[in-house]
Amino acid sequence: MILFLTLQTHAQSDLTKQIRSYREKQSNAWLQEYVSFLAIPNLAPDTINMQKNAAYIQNMMAKRGIQNIQLLYPTTPKIPPAVYGEVLVPNAKKTIIFYAHYDGQPVDSTKWSKGLHPFKPMLLNGSLEKQATIINWPKEKEEINPEWRIYSRGASDDKAGVMAILSAYESLIANGKHPDFNIKFFFEGEEEAGSDHLHEILVKYAAQLQSDLWVICDGPVHQTGKKMLVFGARGDAHAEITVFGSKRPLHSGHYGNWAPNPALELAKLLASMKDDHGKVLIKGFYDDVTPLTDREKKAVAAIPSPDQQMKTELGFMSEEMTGKSLAESILLPTLNINGMQSANVGKLSSNIIPTTAIASIDLRLVPGNDYKKQQEKLVQHIQSQGYFIVTKDPTDQERASHNKIAKIVLSDGYNAQRTSMDLPIAQHLIQAIQSTTSDQIISMPSMGGSLPLFVFEKYLKATTITVPIANHDNNQHAENENIRLQNLWNGIETFAAIMMMK
Amino acid sequence: MILFLTLQTHAQSDLTKQIRSYREKQSNAWLQEYVSFLAIPNLAPDTINMQKNAAYIQNMMAKRGIQNIQLLYPTTPKIPPAVYGEVLVPNAKKTIIFYAHYDGQPVDSTKWSKGLHPFKPMLLNGSLEKQATIINWPKEKEEINPEWRIYSRGASDDKAGVMAILSAYESLIANGKHPDFNIKFFFEGEEEAGSDHLHEILVKYAAQLQSDLWVICDGPVHQTGKKMLVFGARGDAHAEITVFGSKRPLHSGHYGNWAPNPALELAKLLASMKDDHGKVLIKGFYDDVTPLTDREKKAVAAIPSPDQQMKTELGFMSEEMTGKSLAESILLPTLNINGMQSANVGKLSSNIIPTTAIASIDLRLVPGNDYKKQQEKLVQHIQSQGYFIVTKDPTDQERASHNKIAKIVLSDGYNAQRTSMDLPIAQHLIQAIQSTTSDQIISMPSMGGSLPLFVFEKYLKATTITVPIANHDNNQHAENENIRLQNLWNGIETFAAIMMMK
Repeated sequence: MILFLTLQTHAQSDLTKQIRSYREKQSNAWLQEYVSFLAIPNLAPDTINMQKNAAYIQNMMAKRGIQNIQLLYPTTPKIPPAVYGEVLVPNAKKTIIFYAHYDGQPVDSTKWSKGLHPFKPMLLNGSLEKQATIINWPKEKEEINPEWRIYSRGASDDKAGVMAILSAYESLIANGKHPDFNIKFFFEGEEEAGSDHLHEILVKYAAQLQSDLWVICDGPVHQTGKKMLVFGARGDAHAEITVFGSKRPLHSGHYGNWAPNPALELAKLLASMKDDHGKVLIKGFYDDVTPLTDREKKAVAAIPSPDQQMKTELGFMSEEMTGKSLAESILLPTLNINGMQSANVGKLSSNIIPTTAIASIDLRLVPGNDYKKQQEKLVQHIQSQGYFIVTKDPTDQERASHNKIAKIVLSDGYNAQRTSMDLPIAQHLIQAIQSTTSDQIISMPSMGGSLPLFVFEKYLKATTITVPIANHDNNQHAENENIRLQNLWNGIETFAAIMMMK
Repeated sequence: MILFLTLQTHAQSDLTKQIRSYREKQSNAWLQEYVSFLAIPNLAPDTINMQKNAAYIQNMMAKRGIQNIQLLYPTTPKIPPAVYGEVLVPNAKKTIIFYAHYDGQPVDSTKWSKGLHPFKPMLLNGSLEKQATIINWPKEKEEINPEWRIYSRGASDDKAGVMAILSAYESLIANGKHPDFNIKFFFEGEEEAGSDHLHEILVKYAAQLQSDLWVICDGPVHQTGKKMLVFGARGDAHAEITVFGSKRPLHSGHYGNWAPNPALELAKLLASMKDDHGKVLIKGFYDDVTPLTDREKKAVAAIPSPDQQMKTELGFMSEEMTGKSLAESILLPTLNINGMQSANVGKLSSNIIPTTAIASIDLRLVPGNDYKKQQEKLVQHIQSQGYFIVTKDPTDQERASHNKIAKIVLSDGYNAQRTSMDLPIAQHLIQAIQSTTSDQIISMPSMGGSLPLFVFEKYLKATTITVPIANHDNNQHAENENIRLQNLWNGIETFAAIMMMK
């Protein structure tokens, strides 16, 4: 029997080869520039350092000949500005805005591995999980191994976006290439803090920010390492649940069996929320989900499965939603415990019955979900488990009249966003990215993560498509965040191709 | 209809009145002596400070004319010594040893309320829970309100025992009273660290430590405030359970629904251990329990119920074991969660799927239980829930071949101990304590808490009865530990009466 396989073949464009050749000369200088950028702490509430970050980016833009460099402030004071710049073309047929964010997730430096610190970037000869070690920064003209990684907060999420976009533009100009449409740069400073004031900037600078497409650089590429573009993001909202025992910690000997234990109560409450196959048991949890279109279903089916490789790498046997692939799982809403605490464990543990137990819950949303409605379903479930709900610590009277009390603090949140794969500009974007690699690129209807993409749609009626570049094992949002250099290099080629797209 | 009530009436002895009168003169000096004692940090592993504590106690003994003052060291080096002293009587008919411990529970000073610190004793004009505030230490001859409290680690557990016993002896001598039997003092320095080396001291000094009775001063009096003596203690053992998710923290957006969440797994596991009425569901958990004797049952029935008062004070409506009183509950073995943790909550929470979730479990034991057997039942239950059990973090191979993995670290532990209420010396002790108060005193078959009393039985064949003095709301083992002064004064009268008992 003979098998006939239809293989779609792809070739790297000449442009990509030119960009790569320029990078080989520039990479050492870029590394130095990037490391100095990463060393500036980038927590959104740290106003002084955020100003330093913004100034650093302005300087990066100026060095590359980008025009009209500005800081775009929201109307609310003391919020980090977006850093803006542009390259205008006479009679341009379109405008594309490139987005990344320069702020990072909160840090707990005590959790970083030995020798590492969120704001002291280190170079490692590979991945920490694979026993890589810290190495010296390369000397001038020393060859740079693309498997090396930089460990630092923001290294992948999302200063990598700023670095790759600006270096892509630099590479084009150095090769005498000029985009034939307007390019604008927009680097946000408040994404990890929830982009609470992004809409103020979009409204205030609406005229300046009109475009045919926002290309959003954030998040990791596919776990197979293949290049990817993503047509949407899940929405996100949180809830923090506290259940209560005695008002004061009690000796677990003198009161054990008699005083209620809030850690156990919380365990029972959380256990009631999901079955053993990862399905959320909260009433109506999946009811509002908009079904996938046929084109989206096809795109999902074409995504190569990294699942077994990922399980081996991550060290677990079974997925949470029995029988669902990673690609399918992230197209459904989630209820995930981000953290759980009651008194202390380990050396700090003592013989007490805790006074409270707390769980931080993350709700991811898909098209069709409304974040407030999804939070309300959670609250109603907790009520259905016999809890009296409060939003502040219970009063003595509430304690005396309710057997089970849960404090629930709901966060702000935002809904999911999804761009149609059928738009011509979407097809051009796919072609541009495909031109950089002989590998088949991946089109995903949505990323699993969240970006406040609805804001662009709501305030600017803008179209957004996300083009991530970071390695999937970048420890984004956790300790030991890192970027694999090859991913940074690939990102530069990707954005250069997009800037020259049809 | 006429009701005939048989009321047993009690009167305070003349001795008690003399002791009280002496205390009214001495209390200011005692406060000063006690506060300096409390200010010496008393964590068993802090060798230097434990030496200071021991020296301080030796000095307290010397000032009171106690003889043969010694430090009794175990054979293992670097363990805090017991502080020993004695008062021998020619042709004594019996010997009673008074025990307390001078070490304290671990401290987390950040959890103590504003203005308080474990080793900077403060005087408050009442209980912190009732909005008491810090006040100045009384000047010489200033009247001391017995409702005032001293806040400090060890204030009640158990430097109060050392202070009350030594001051009782001082009061007797000052009143020209001399015990007609041998009195020995034995103050341990390693109780809160598990008394791991106590047996070495008992064996090494066995001849010197022969006695008719050990009077153990530790723990709180009854919640009604009534004086109490206790014929036994629960045993204690621990287990720390860790369940595992991904080897590295994952972004809860990119992997939520797909990567298993160890916090949820742990919640389900803990929830499987107890029903909604506080009954432990682990197979055979209650099987080994020795039933109460008739006399013990009668004693339990005579204990006044503080339950409703306690629930109001502690701020909860329902006891954990539905329908069981506090006095009944503590005569059963427990499974109690001391602490639970997975990643972070509150401001430190981030959008991740945690890598591990940990629970610290406390198992209290009653006569009939063997601590190792009780731990083994817990391990078997976890196995029965589908877990593969490891004692160290799982290897990659273990992760690849087992769906659910629990690491269980079992502590050392010890069994319960109970002395018969029928012994003549027990009856004499009851009479002595009853002579100090017009209130009916309480005899409990066992305290809820644990003391390594089996050690005295095993190595010295000794009889032990516990006479606690601390207020029940002393925050023992937690932050804001405190002693109510009236409890300290009552303790002095109690031990003076015991030293003059039949």
